[in-house]
Amino acid sequence: MNVTIRGRTQHFRTVAFDTTKNSVLLVEQRLLPHEFKIVATKDFHETAAAIRDMIVRGAGAIGATAAYGLAQGARAFRGSDLKKFSAHVENVYQTLKVARPTAVDLVNAMNDVRREMTRGKTVQEKQSLALAAAEEFANEDVHHCEEIGKHGSKLIRNGLRILTHCNAGWLAFVDVGTATAPMYAAQAQGKKFHVFCDETRPRSQGATLTAWELAQQKISHQIIADNAAGHLMQRGEIDLVIVGSDRTLGRTGEVTNKIGTYTKAVLAARHKIPFYVAIPLSTIDWNLKSGLKIPIEERGESEVFGAWGVLADGHNSGAKRRRAFVRVANPASGARNPGFDVTPPELISGIITPAGIFKPEELWKFRRRLGFAD
Amino acid sequence: MNVTIRGRTQHFRTVAFDTTKNSVLLVEQRLLPHEFKIVATKDFHETAAAIRDMIVRGAGAIGATAAYGLAQGARAFRGSDLKKFSAHVENVYQTLKVARPTAVDLVNAMNDVRREMTRGKTVQEKQSLALAAAEEFANEDVHHCEEIGKHGSKLIRNGLRILTHCNAGWLAFVDVGTATAPMYAAQAQGKKFHVFCDETRPRSQGATLTAWELAQQKISHQIIADNAAGHLMQRGEIDLVIVGSDRTLGRTGEVTNKIGTYTKAVLAARHKIPFYVAIPLSTIDWNLKSGLKIPIEERGESEVFGAWGVLADGHNSGAKRRRAFVRVANPASGARNPGFDVTPPELISGIITPAGIFKPEELWKFRRRLGFAD
Repeated sequence: MNVTIRGRTQHFRTVAFDTTKNSVLLVEQRLLPHEFKIVATKDFHETAAAIRDMIVRGAGAIGATAAYGLAQGARAFRGSDLKKFSAHVENVYQTLKVARPTAVDLVNAMNDVRREMTRGKTVQEKQSLALAAAEEFANEDVHHCEEIGKHGSKLIRNGLRILTHCNAGWLAFVDVGTATAPMYAAQAQGKKFHVFCDETRPRSQGATLTAWELAQQKISHQIIADNAAGHLMQRGEIDLVIVGSDRTLGRTGEVTNKIGTYTKAVLAARHKIPFYVAIPLSTIDWNLKSGLKIPIEERGESEVFGAWGVLADGHNSGAKRRRAFVRVANPASGARNPGFDVTPPELISGIITPAGIFKPEELWKFRRRLGFAD
Repeated sequence: MNVTIRGRTQHFRTVAFDTTKNSVLLVEQRLLPHEFKIVATKDFHETAAAIRDMIVRGAGAIGATAAYGLAQGARAFRGSDLKKFSAHVENVYQTLKVARPTAVDLVNAMNDVRREMTRGKTVQEKQSLALAAAEEFANEDVHHCEEIGKHGSKLIRNGLRILTHCNAGWLAFVDVGTATAPMYAAQAQGKKFHVFCDETRPRSQGATLTAWELAQQKISHQIIADNAAGHLMQRGEIDLVIVGSDRTLGRTGEVTNKIGTYTKAVLAARHKIPFYVAIPLSTIDWNLKSGLKIPIEERGESEVFGAWGVLADGHNSGAKRRRAFVRVANPASGARNPGFDVTPPELISGIITPAGIFKPEELWKFRRRLGFAD
């Protein structure tokens, strides 16, 4: 999407590739919203480190980074020995795979690239095919998000006030995003609306990433504490909720997403406010039979004890603002920090997919249209 | 309540008075949980500043501070001229009154003191009466909280997991607190239970004050992000919710409390978890006929943009940890920051008062028992 730097507006993807320098180009997400910077990794080791250190995060973005990283590694090989090349590629694959052990899209994306590479006869052919496959994965990701935007934008009328939680924006994908896609499409259609971004403690992705995205696109928005949405709904100040999802159960319509999503769904149902979930088809899990079986990652306590940011004025002695963690609580108190929660289908008005909008209970019925393979 | 400093456990009140030095003694709440310090104000100007700068906060604590501050100011008068004394006391009263213009308890407490003073004939008599009345106000505050504890502790069984929001603990009163009173009483009865403290963004009173209180009392507890309670309820890990209230409508049973309280009540109702509100009788508003008429304070945006805390290790060059504000979001995004919300009676299992536990809809029926004066 567009980013304005020193008055100049340019289009960026979250993940791109520089073929000349054989380098993966990534938006350095840990610095947002304070600084916009593109990181260019010089080899696949740096690309793996960028995934591990969360310079890049979000299902689609991680997938594309791994795909490009595999192509980058393959293209760095010098020589024509197919056996040595194959061993080298396996090393690249394993290095990237362990960068985020739980990211399913990372492995799926690399498997796509590796499958394409088998069509080549020579090292050079395989190298070209690897890059083409990575490009294809990235373009598909963008295309799916655009389709979500096309369908979802029908839900947005002029003057609507929309709530979103966490970041399912373009920074989580290659471009456009999922929960944000209907907003960007509606904006392109000339509609005016306002977005409330839940702060999304403890990692504050709403306050840092989503708010930054909307600011860059010049979409009217405000940040709210996670505590405030209930009050705003009660006073009639929210008309629609759109969130993303990390995993949606195709058999039950249950949606796993960032902690706090379930709370917003319960509140929306009480106030009869439509609650939509925007997802790419790759995040539908056709196997699991109950949301209770979804393992909920219990993250480290330290996130709950404080916040990352930049030191406010008066502490900025250097030219750049200094990143710092302030500890708000006493760690001796201990914390619980579940990373995700599960929202049941009866609280969800619809699932916005690249193939259209479906009732959560109907995903199974339309499973073939939604890419289910038996 | 008890505070342990360097291995030694002592009892403190949030607000106390040193008659020898004519000084109000206050727990410096802005430093918690990082440092425990008692501030001794040397005159009523410093006491007013302590209220204004939020060294002390919470309805009961502010009331007692103002009552003691008025006595402190009156006692500083030298001479026997009743007219000059009266003008001096009026000046003290006005100085304290403007310290927190919206705190009703502040004015009520000072009016109590002033009324008592009229019984004295000489300056010296009036000075003595002022201090006695301030003591009486503080002792009454403690007594009411103890009565809340007596009634509320019946709700706490062994093994219960309790959720609380914000801080309605002893730091918000002279001692014991309201939402915490049943916990402290149950602990004294030998019951074992666990408390989840909502972080309570944007000001984090749960993470800083409530968690610190419970740690000092050695009550098992953990801090959670405000987003996490819904998930914990869904997984059956919360059995009871107890919160405080800033204003409860005696005619409707609606409860005003810290932003986010309403959300927890909606979640509790969905999961059939008892939701109780603990209040002193002074916070019942017998006049207002609708919660929609309660003005909701819209606080400054900056609270939402970041967090106050201490700089983590590596930044602690000095002997003391340095307090700092980190900015998490970009202020250009703007924020909405409602300070309170209103919970309707149908979501409330009961109101715990010093006079017993009542259904919210029955406050009006029992209004005479609850101190309503017609």
